[in-house]
Amino acid sequence: MVEHSGLDIMCLNKHSPSPSSGSSADSEKKLLSKLKVSLTKKYPQKNAETLSAQYGTNLLLIGVSVMLALAQHGPVVREEHLLTFITVLMLVQLVWMLCYMIRRERERSPVPERDAHAGTSWIRGGLTMLALLSLIMDAFRIGYFVGYHSCISAVLGVYPIIHALHTISQVHFLWFHIKDVIKKYETFERFGVIHAVFTNLLLWCNGVMSEAEHFLNNHRKRLTALGYANLTTEEVEPQCNCSTSVCSMFSTSLNYLYPFNIEYHIFVSAMLFVMWKNIGRTLDHHTNRKQPTTRSSGVLLGPVLGLLALASSITVLVVYLIHVENSVETRQAAISMFYCYGVVMLACMCGASSAGLLIYRVEDWPMDTGQNPSRTLDSELLLGSSLGSWLMSWCSVVAVASGQSSQSYRWTCLAYSLLLVLEKCFQNLFIVESLYRRRRDLAKSEDTSATVPEIFSVAASMVPPYDGIVNHGYETQDKRSLEEGLPEKREVYSRKHTMVPLPVGHRLNVTPSRKRQILKNITIFLFMCNISLWILPAFGCRPQYENDLEQETFGFSVWTTVLNVAIPMNLFYRMHSVASLFEVFRKV
Amino acid sequence: MVEHSGLDIMCLNKHSPSPSSGSSADSEKKLLSKLKVSLTKKYPQKNAETLSAQYGTNLLLIGVSVMLALAQHGPVVREEHLLTFITVLMLVQLVWMLCYMIRRERERSPVPERDAHAGTSWIRGGLTMLALLSLIMDAFRIGYFVGYHSCISAVLGVYPIIHALHTISQVHFLWFHIKDVIKKYETFERFGVIHAVFTNLLLWCNGVMSEAEHFLNNHRKRLTALGYANLTTEEVEPQCNCSTSVCSMFSTSLNYLYPFNIEYHIFVSAMLFVMWKNIGRTLDHHTNRKQPTTRSSGVLLGPVLGLLALASSITVLVVYLIHVENSVETRQAAISMFYCYGVVMLACMCGASSAGLLIYRVEDWPMDTGQNPSRTLDSELLLGSSLGSWLMSWCSVVAVASGQSSQSYRWTCLAYSLLLVLEKCFQNLFIVESLYRRRRDLAKSEDTSATVPEIFSVAASMVPPYDGIVNHGYETQDKRSLEEGLPEKREVYSRKHTMVPLPVGHRLNVTPSRKRQILKNITIFLFMCNISLWILPAFGCRPQYENDLEQETFGFSVWTTVLNVAIPMNLFYRMHSVASLFEVFRKV
Repeated sequence: MVEHSGLDIMCLNKHSPSPSSGSSADSEKKLLSKLKVSLTKKYPQKNAETLSAQYGTNLLLIGVSVMLALAQHGPVVREEHLLTFITVLMLVQLVWMLCYMIRRERERSPVPERDAHAGTSWIRGGLTMLALLSLIMDAFRIGYFVGYHSCISAVLGVYPIIHALHTISQVHFLWFHIKDVIKKYETFERFGVIHAVFTNLLLWCNGVMSEAEHFLNNHRKRLTALGYANLTTEEVEPQCNCSTSVCSMFSTSLNYLYPFNIEYHIFVSAMLFVMWKNIGRTLDHHTNRKQPTTRSSGVLLGPVLGLLALASSITVLVVYLIHVENSVETRQAAISMFYCYGVVMLACMCGASSAGLLIYRVEDWPMDTGQNPSRTLDSELLLGSSLGSWLMSWCSVVAVASGQSSQSYRWTCLAYSLLLVLEKCFQNLFIVESLYRRRRDLAKSEDTSATVPEIFSVAASMVPPYDGIVNHGYETQDKRSLEEGLPEKREVYSRKHTMVPLPVGHRLNVTPSRKRQILKNITIFLFMCNISLWILPAFGCRPQYENDLEQETFGFSVWTTVLNVAIPMNLFYRMHSVASLFEVFRKV
Repeated sequence: MVEHSGLDIMCLNKHSPSPSSGSSADSEKKLLSKLKVSLTKKYPQKNAETLSAQYGTNLLLIGVSVMLALAQHGPVVREEHLLTFITVLMLVQLVWMLCYMIRRERERSPVPERDAHAGTSWIRGGLTMLALLSLIMDAFRIGYFVGYHSCISAVLGVYPIIHALHTISQVHFLWFHIKDVIKKYETFERFGVIHAVFTNLLLWCNGVMSEAEHFLNNHRKRLTALGYANLTTEEVEPQCNCSTSVCSMFSTSLNYLYPFNIEYHIFVSAMLFVMWKNIGRTLDHHTNRKQPTTRSSGVLLGPVLGLLALASSITVLVVYLIHVENSVETRQAAISMFYCYGVVMLACMCGASSAGLLIYRVEDWPMDTGQNPSRTLDSELLLGSSLGSWLMSWCSVVAVASGQSSQSYRWTCLAYSLLLVLEKCFQNLFIVESLYRRRRDLAKSEDTSATVPEIFSVAASMVPPYDGIVNHGYETQDKRSLEEGLPEKREVYSRKHTMVPLPVGHRLNVTPSRKRQILKNITIFLFMCNISLWILPAFGCRPQYENDLEQETFGFSVWTTVLNVAIPMNLFYRMHSVASLFEVFRKV
């Protein structure tokens, strides 16, 4: 060992001359030339990450500060400024995407590395739907501009055109490149991807702000109509008449399309963020493979109950929106109805999630501890986006407990708020646990003992090696998970339901085991419930603004600020859990 | 392979009977007993993490919502309620710490695993200082309570007593247990640690809120005195006279001690969070060792310039605080002076950080890619806490660009804001890069070639094996970092400056290489500058409130909200970078 170290030093000393050997001018020259080389050279990974993250956050913050100025409705900062800034960012992203695709095309590496977990096809499909709705929105915006073009800024016409172009190319990019694990030209790619992430985040913020402002204006109008207060609305109307007959149709339709546009941008950000995290990553081929979709026979109760929940939510939404605009009594009744409905709904969801958790406790399926940035982000986003709604709930609890108001729905509101906290806790636990579990289908499914050996001999000859039957990679992983404090080690077993038709295998695809059936039902029920709970606030059912409970305790401005932050977070939470639950449904 | 898989299945099927074998009542019974076992059994790691994180965040959010209600100064929610809640949390933490220490004592495992990177001794020393100041603050609070005990709630007397007890035991806990890597009784420990993290975060929030409220009240008084506005202050004074003569002394002294108390709590949270992250972790002995401290000869210019910066900051603080309360002219002059000082200061800091980065570019020292939760948290906190100040800066830029005001210091304010953004970017890059670099002292230091072999033969016989001379663990690590896209692989070399006196080694500890000297000077200069920039806002020099630039563009309430969030984040950023720079100084 000593000898070895001695040798190493000799080598090192030979290669790196000590600074004292040579004149100072000479060494300065050397330093400069070295510097030139190392500035153009590849930057170390951690630093490039930090630098690009800083670039991205600052872009977002510039946009946010312009938005804050805009919210003041001052004479200088106007919407055109913000839209110009966003348009420039979108153009930069367009150029980058073009360059990236040309480079990829030119490169033509036979099998580029791809992250199997990033952007599954159904999520890309969903995004395409949202993108289509965004395109319709852009069309309406262009129509609106055409109607008022004589008196509004040209930016309001350019923006939707660029936005439409941006949407189309971005969806194309997501379809073909979101799974890429970038290994070459990292610096350029890193900045491009982070630019795209934050451009979409800024578009999300802009959507959220417009939406919140619009809602608040409606709320103020309603309060004024009911005689509660005499607040002036701050909506800016164009100063001329519309030259076409459909301007008002365009502007009202926009309000129904906003929620979809908002979700589109935040989802794209999350997907691009995973792509950013994947830059320079070395894929582990044991973990980098998708779990196959499972058959979903025996799934009936979940969808039925889910559809019931969805239908009742839509009913509640319609009834609420009609009644809240009428007299004070119907308004109170509408709010009461909402809370009662919420209590029932959330209690069912709590029950479903905890049933799912209980099944996991009984069944000790192995944990999957492989590296997967997409899954890590999913669970972090679930927890992070719960914060807004938790804060809102605890504020309601404090408001009820402080007991200043005498509304009839006080106690239902308390129950609703507490259940909301519990439901999110249980659901998060259920989703996170489901995402980190591995299936052990075969071991539990019925009447397999006899047919197994033949089937495996068939399957083994048909599937590629790393989709193989006994995965020894799993065994070492399990040792790791044991060291990390997981339940006792078990012989782990996994088998892929290959899409390749197995000649003898059809007999095997019998009804999945009962527990898996229950889990599937629970998941689909929660899926529908989360859609319901997304629809309600997205389309204007927000009793937190109307119930006067919290406003008395916290004051109008504090409570509105809390809501303006919490409601978009909650909307994102619902959409995100819908996506995660779909993933769980396919995996369980 | 096929044979093997066949065997596995046999085993599995033997151990886990299929659900169809047995009557339904029987299987239900089995299910229940299984459930009983698995609910009391150890919970899977990922789930326990999620569950405890959710518990902690909800504790914090309950506290925050009470604080928001408190900020409204309503008749129902009063300070006593908040303090009671916090006191209960502190008591729970006290009980937990006691239990934990007793358990550890009883266990008596000979060498408990310890994370070498968590809570270095100098950071614990610093915390002890802050804790002492907190104790003085508690004493003042008790004194204040004694003076007014006839008319204020008893909670205001109990709270400081419990807080003092909490501080003492927590510092004891930090000294002896913060490095522990918990492997046994995980669930209990996990909840205890996260409870402690969020109790301290809540204490931080409470400190920040009291401080902000106090500052705003002073600001309002000042504005009223200057004739700007006639705002009523909302400070609640006790309804009786003080029974001792020093009550006002106590309450004014409290304001000078607040900043230290605030920093104490947020630092403790960060340390405990690392402890939480370490629960159930398996330490890698190659990376789990501290880099030794380096000698710091030749460090002169940095400290001198740093002291100059510190002295000028204190001068600026005093001049500012005196002038801002006088007439409108002196107020404007004071603000101008602050911005000029800030521009010079930040420009120097930008220069220093970028010089440091350039040195790293010239020198391609190897990267350290080992797992280290403490370091990961450090870099994430640096980036995260920069956000507040960046938002503030961009708001100032927007305000100046919108050009509504005509103050003389407009352009200096613009320069100051842009430099603030740049300075934080450069400094973050410098700190993150320094933390992720490994030293390569020996290879670069002078006149070693002759003496090396003998010294190593001595050292090799004296130090424990994994502190050894040629660390082959590093070589494999480097391979990993190469795969992750880092610069080309080099023969990596490291040697520990052991504290054990080397008989021949004294000759070796000559002046460190020039580049390291420069880096040390830069680091110590930045260290002092960050202290200066902490002192200024901590003790009331906040021209952002006084300059009227942003208030015109954003309105009073939005701008105050931004500042109330951004300034505490900025204070934390400065303190945190002071700690990180000290770490860098010892390591470079």
